[in-house]
Amino acid sequence: MENKKLEISDLIVKQFGPRTLPSPLLTHEHLGVKESFFVKPGECIRMDIRSNPGEDAELCLEVAGPEKEIFFDPENTKAAILTCGGLCPGLNDVIRGIVYFLDDWYSVNDVIGIRYGYNGLSSNPFSPPVQLTKEYVSDIHMSGGTILGSSRGNPPVSLMVDNLLNMGIDMLFCVGGDGTLRGAHEIAKEIIKRNLNISVIGIPKTIDNDVPFVYRSFGFRTAVAMARDALECAHIEAKGAFNGVGIVKIMGREAGFLTARSVCASGDVDYCLIPEMEFPLHGKGGLLEHLRRHLKKHGHHALIAVAEGAGRHLIGDTGEKDASGNVRFNDIGKFLKDEISKAFDSWNEVVNVKYIDPSYLVRSIPANSEDNIYCADLARYAIDAAMSGKTDMMIGYWHGTFVNIPFGAIGSKKRMTGDCKLWMAVLSSTEQPIDWW
Amino acid sequence: MENKKLEISDLIVKQFGPRTLPSPLLTHEHLGVKESFFVKPGECIRMDIRSNPGEDAELCLEVAGPEKEIFFDPENTKAAILTCGGLCPGLNDVIRGIVYFLDDWYSVNDVIGIRYGYNGLSSNPFSPPVQLTKEYVSDIHMSGGTILGSSRGNPPVSLMVDNLLNMGIDMLFCVGGDGTLRGAHEIAKEIIKRNLNISVIGIPKTIDNDVPFVYRSFGFRTAVAMARDALECAHIEAKGAFNGVGIVKIMGREAGFLTARSVCASGDVDYCLIPEMEFPLHGKGGLLEHLRRHLKKHGHHALIAVAEGAGRHLIGDTGEKDASGNVRFNDIGKFLKDEISKAFDSWNEVVNVKYIDPSYLVRSIPANSEDNIYCADLARYAIDAAMSGKTDMMIGYWHGTFVNIPFGAIGSKKRMTGDCKLWMAVLSSTEQPIDWW
Amino acid sequence: MENKKLEISDLIVKQFGPRTLPSPLLTHEHLGVKESFFVKPGECIRMDIRSNPGEDAELCLEVAGPEKEIFFDPENTKAAILTCGGLCPGLNDVIRGIVYFLDDWYSVNDVIGIRYGYNGLSSNPFSPPVQLTKEYVSDIHMSGGTILGSSRGNPPVSLMVDNLLNMGIDMLFCVGGDGTLRGAHEIAKEIIKRNLNISVIGIPKTIDNDVPFVYRSFGFRTAVAMARDALECAHIEAKGAFNGVGIVKIMGREAGFLTARSVCASGDVDYCLIPEMEFPLHGKGGLLEHLRRHLKKHGHHALIAVAEGAGRHLIGDTGEKDASGNVRFNDIGKFLKDEISKAFDSWNEVVNVKYIDPSYLVRSIPANSEDNIYCADLARYAIDAAMSGKTDMMIGYWHGTFVNIPFGAIGSKKRMTGDCKLWMAVLSSTEQPIDWW
Amino acid sequence: MENKKLEISDLIVKQFGPRTLPSPLLTHEHLGVKESFFVKPGECIRMDIRSNPGEDAELCLEVAGPEKEIFFDPENTKAAILTCGGLCPGLNDVIRGIVYFLDDWYSVNDVIGIRYGYNGLSSNPFSPPVQLTKEYVSDIHMSGGTILGSSRGNPPVSLMVDNLLNMGIDMLFCVGGDGTLRGAHEIAKEIIKRNLNISVIGIPKTIDNDVPFVYRSFGFRTAVAMARDALECAHIEAKGAFNGVGIVKIMGREAGFLTARSVCASGDVDYCLIPEMEFPLHGKGGLLEHLRRHLKKHGHHALIAVAEGAGRHLIGDTGEKDASGNVRFNDIGKFLKDEISKAFDSWNEVVNVKYIDPSYLVRSIPANSEDNIYCADLARYAIDAAMSGKTDMMIGYWHGTFVNIPFGAIGSKKRMTGDCKLWMAVLSSTEQPIDWW
Repeated sequence: MENKKLEISDLIVKQFGPRTLPSPLLTHEHLGVKESFFVKPGECIRMDIRSNPGEDAELCLEVAGPEKEIFFDPENTKAAILTCGGLCPGLNDVIRGIVYFLDDWYSVNDVIGIRYGYNGLSSNPFSPPVQLTKEYVSDIHMSGGTILGSSRGNPPVSLMVDNLLNMGIDMLFCVGGDGTLRGAHEIAKEIIKRNLNISVIGIPKTIDNDVPFVYRSFGFRTAVAMARDALECAHIEAKGAFNGVGIVKIMGREAGFLTARSVCASGDVDYCLIPEMEFPLHGKGGLLEHLRRHLKKHGHHALIAVAEGAGRHLIGDTGEKDASGNVRFNDIGKFLKDEISKAFDSWNEVVNVKYIDPSYLVRSIPANSEDNIYCADLARYAIDAAMSGKTDMMIGYWHGTFVNIPFGAIGSKKRMTGDCKLWMAVLSSTEQPIDWW
Repeated sequence: MENKKLEISDLIVKQFGPRTLPSPLLTHEHLGVKESFFVKPGECIRMDIRSNPGEDAELCLEVAGPEKEIFFDPENTKAAILTCGGLCPGLNDVIRGIVYFLDDWYSVNDVIGIRYGYNGLSSNPFSPPVQLTKEYVSDIHMSGGTILGSSRGNPPVSLMVDNLLNMGIDMLFCVGGDGTLRGAHEIAKEIIKRNLNISVIGIPKTIDNDVPFVYRSFGFRTAVAMARDALECAHIEAKGAFNGVGIVKIMGREAGFLTARSVCASGDVDYCLIPEMEFPLHGKGGLLEHLRRHLKKHGHHALIAVAEGAGRHLIGDTGEKDASGNVRFNDIGKFLKDEISKAFDSWNEVVNVKYIDPSYLVRSIPANSEDNIYCADLARYAIDAAMSGKTDMMIGYWHGTFVNIPFGAIGSKKRMTGDCKLWMAVLSSTEQPIDWW
Repeated sequence: MENKKLEISDLIVKQFGPRTLPSPLLTHEHLGVKESFFVKPGECIRMDIRSNPGEDAELCLEVAGPEKEIFFDPENTKAAILTCGGLCPGLNDVIRGIVYFLDDWYSVNDVIGIRYGYNGLSSNPFSPPVQLTKEYVSDIHMSGGTILGSSRGNPPVSLMVDNLLNMGIDMLFCVGGDGTLRGAHEIAKEIIKRNLNISVIGIPKTIDNDVPFVYRSFGFRTAVAMARDALECAHIEAKGAFNGVGIVKIMGREAGFLTARSVCASGDVDYCLIPEMEFPLHGKGGLLEHLRRHLKKHGHHALIAVAEGAGRHLIGDTGEKDASGNVRFNDIGKFLKDEISKAFDSWNEVVNVKYIDPSYLVRSIPANSEDNIYCADLARYAIDAAMSGKTDMMIGYWHGTFVNIPFGAIGSKKRMTGDCKLWMAVLSSTEQPIDWW
Repeated sequence: MENKKLEISDLIVKQFGPRTLPSPLLTHEHLGVKESFFVKPGECIRMDIRSNPGEDAELCLEVAGPEKEIFFDPENTKAAILTCGGLCPGLNDVIRGIVYFLDDWYSVNDVIGIRYGYNGLSSNPFSPPVQLTKEYVSDIHMSGGTILGSSRGNPPVSLMVDNLLNMGIDMLFCVGGDGTLRGAHEIAKEIIKRNLNISVIGIPKTIDNDVPFVYRSFGFRTAVAMARDALECAHIEAKGAFNGVGIVKIMGREAGFLTARSVCASGDVDYCLIPEMEFPLHGKGGLLEHLRRHLKKHGHHALIAVAEGAGRHLIGDTGEKDASGNVRFNDIGKFLKDEISKAFDSWNEVVNVKYIDPSYLVRSIPANSEDNIYCADLARYAIDAAMSGKTDMMIGYWHGTFVNIPFGAIGSKKRMTGDCKLWMAVLSSTEQPIDWW
């Protein structure tokens, strides 16, 4: 998905039609919600909310939510869910939310879980799907991970659509990152090409928080909390030794959002190194000399937070790729540890470097309460969209409002910039020089 | 502060002037931030961000942030902080943030902490102020509460202004709720009347999350997490006994936001009772009969979350008032426990009611990572406003953006409504009938 | 169970016999444990381990563990578990342990869970028993409470034995406190009287840690950790107000162990009030005057930990009883709060009392890792005893060793004394005068 | 310290004398403790508490505690504390306890903290000592690590004793592991040789729990809790992928106690690999083939806990040493990950190995409540010993009693054996074959 200039038409959500069924939310005695709760057709928010907007002044995003007329008949609707890519806190919350709300709000009881991501739609899946009931999923939000399992890589799109047809699926919820959403876009396009009525709805998952139109991705807050704890431990280690230097590697292949937020939450970090910033290592203005001066001035300890994708200008990558096609990186944490030790050896000064790579510990924990709520919301809005017959879209979150975003509008991943407010918050809580960016 | 129709002029922030000093952010070598980081004079966001806005279409909120020209000369500026009202997670984070950023960003080193709220500005304070340095506050964010202490009630405004003058204070940061902000408004008006140049900036604190123009108040997320844990315990207690009924009382005198969010975070609550909703207790459609049916259908256990201010239509209040002038409520949790026990006794059925009042446990814990970050942001924006010479205003948070809100615009407290999205989320995760509201 | 002078014979465990079956631990290929692992018949530890022992020099306790010959034939053995009384962290761990180890170690697969304590053995139980499998219990240790439910009170012993016979149960594991163990003793005696071979094994549960021969009861450590957190919150509240006094009520009807350990864990408590100590309230040497002096000397805040059963010399009890026959106490926390407020009012001095009753929050949380391990150990030793045909006994823990204790030896509950090491630790970490005891 | 057969004389604690001063515990009005609280001279417990003891039947350990006569005059006593080696939860608790109890119980106010372990007694220390007051240490137990800093390696003994003399130190508390205690033994011997009266007391610190006469070392329980959490995360990761295999490396260079206890606490581990057990890797009975079969039978996921020192029979070590003289190990976790991946590749089967090395995260966290209490106890007993003039000894914990252990008796480190109760608990909760040991 490339980054092009968005047109108004790019933001119009595709929808099967006509929609003639009244929403059960309106008719069910138990629910019987007020009219004021429904989203009106065409209800939008501005993409640029400044009073003096820029060139995107005309662009609007469709507000997510239930509509009074729906497309799918609850009695004959079969839904499927799959989760792809790396783990992220909240996956089970999303699964649970979809199963609960489909039943409670739309009386849709036939929901299956596709096992191990898109692999479950291949011709030879690792495991068959499981039937998901409220009882089956009632406690899953207490655990991290995903009860459906996950995997990387996609089978051929046409095969996946064949299998959706074979299984009689009417709506597919794809929970995953960049690659997963691209895959969902291809599936949705193939379905439209074949003139089928299968809704494909994406729920963006990215612990890096780098999906456009998603202000804060689910699991991100939980991950920040855990990364903060790891930083606190490294801080303690650094203070426990003379010229102690703690290094914590934090997830983030190409975006530093998780690292930067964790640094702000910690308040004790001296250097924040992210993929977007090519910091100098050697020489007078470089990290090593700066660190040396810092140790002398500030109690003989220092704390460095480094994103896994930072420093590629210094170490390159391995040349290998994983099953998702992601390039494998060299270990920047190990590299920094070695470089710092070598430098201090050359200066004949003591240094004690402690390197922590919390890795999976950050992403496999259960969602915290913020993400519990956020994931339930995402699930509910995804269902509303699907029941209304919308397709080829994901749920976004923009200026505090849940919105429906066509897959085609997504464009390239978010990156931090040197003048964004988050980076200024980082600069204000670290000791690092501003001219590294 | 009453709720009137806002005019454009109501949202214009008062400001001392002229501002002729260049911001140290611009000139200090260490900082030397880019021009693109500064807020432009007059930069605003829309209050109503819908593409088809209502009658408030023209209303705009001033974006918070540093400006290139400032009013106060850092070398001769003395700042003061005070905290009022009940505890709330994050108070120490705000204090720490103000001290750190005044020093790091504006080189203001003379900061004092007024002890025990407005009492510290009285003619006979409990304790004298303390000098606040970065070293003094460096670890305070690890603890709940407020190192400055807090109290309720205000001395006479004119006396407080006299004391600010006597102490040579140039800017006063008031962290507190509704009453505190009203007090700050009075102080600011008195200062303006006397033609003085003392900036008064409010940082809204409310665990009830009921301050207008503040989408999520600081400490609220931490409190939700803790309340969720109390609900989980009550759920366990309820399941541990035959016809077990867990009741948890949650803070919220007149607004149910905290209770409602906690209910959504829990996912296990059957009844959510808030001050805004006058639920029926007796009779066929009432809580007692509904609970009886529920226990039979759903595994013989139930969980009730009740805001402290709920049910006043049933029990009234005590007629007494606390030092802030707040009416003391009767204990709705105890009342419900007794009523349920009585009703089941009259039906000759077993019931085991377990009542938990986590009270102070919810508000005295340290801020979680989300609130760490949020409090630091609030502190930074408060300082930017003060240094620019703004006054008689508080920091708000609207559509994901920090904004400067004149005290005079605040109006009455926020309340939940029966068609808001949060209430729909509550309805979707509980068993309670919609027609109670 | 009264406290009499123990004889050597009192400590001999009853046992069905003869035992002719080789333990599956010895014969199963998967296990095939070494001979050195088995407990030798008659293996004991000294009750008094001092080199210069007192009058109990000859008393020995039977070491718990697997024996090489067992009594029950695994293929035809049916086990039952029940949990009674108030919740306690670790109940589910014990249940899980029994189910797992019966299967893994002895190949006993027929295990049922009696619902809601002894009520499940009555003629009209609330709920029928559930079949317990490894799959069913695999994740239950992640949650607090008991999946079996609990209740108070016992049906007639003879009826319970009839029902055990009707259900074909060979061994009954009773998890509960004082009253439960007394009930188990009666059941075991009735079984012996009828010449039946049903083993009855107790697993002592008491959050008050007052069962004799049990150095540390399961769940106790978890409860201490949670109570410490409540004390920390009250400490924060106390420091947040001028002359702030935090009061935390902690479980412990007649024994102060939980309160005392929590006080030691906290390190911030000024007064520790327990049922064993009749502290003075009024007058020069009383709590109120002492508190007044303390507030003046120590930063105007104080923290009081009070056991629920403390202060009965001051307030008596309600005269009512619960279903277990326990007398209902008046609320000592509320009483202290009122007395302190009244006293300071009479002195015309400010005081801010914050009273926290964490109650169920302390006992309904999941077991921490120490209790995970300890509960699994208890379950394993209980099974070893039962499979060997032992009966009318409970598992104890003495000088770091698990032991088999005949119910008849138990005697009255443990109490703290004014010269025990725990109380000295309390004195060393509080401000309270020693002459209150 | 080698392992020799202990004689009765080996367990006699050295003591300066004569002791003529009454303990302040007895005389101070505030304390005025009862006589029954004091330890009687010669009070001992049996080392072997079995009723039918082995060849150590006559060996006794001196009970720790305050005596009525003390050696050092509180008014003229100066104490010093140092912490050595790797971090461990509870170091700050021990420091705080020593400072508090010296003041509260013995009115000793002159306490200094030696910075960075024995390095602080060298001729050229990194940092000068700090004066430790109650105020200075009042909150340090809330943080992990050690406020004194730590280091590895010892300066010459004679130089260290010179420096103790120069600083006027009367008692030195050495908190550290095997090497530290050996160092303290040498210092104490040198002091005795010079006929000086400086008490040297050790407080054993070892996250591996391998110090003899110490049933459970401080920080161990906290570390188990954290390691359990890491195992839970790895379990979630393993379940999240097809044929997912989680590997967690846990501290323990030569002893598997920490790994084994963590495995028991988790309940979800399939393989527990420790240094004491040389498990087979390849071939029919080896780990790889066993794992392959296990994945097929048990839901396609597995969890391995491996001590850092396990598997040296397979990979050897690096040949390098650290500053303490410890051999650096190759990374067994990385090795297993690679071997498993290679094996499954060779079988043409999918496998997803997730390797977690929580490393410092396990040891730098604050002590939990159990360790809070335990560390305070250790500090108190260490002070009692020092004030009584005892020296050349450490505080041990045996059969639930704190004891004074001469350094000379310590002998070689503890190891697990294949028939110990802990290993049986491990076997009972894992899937691993018993014949690997």
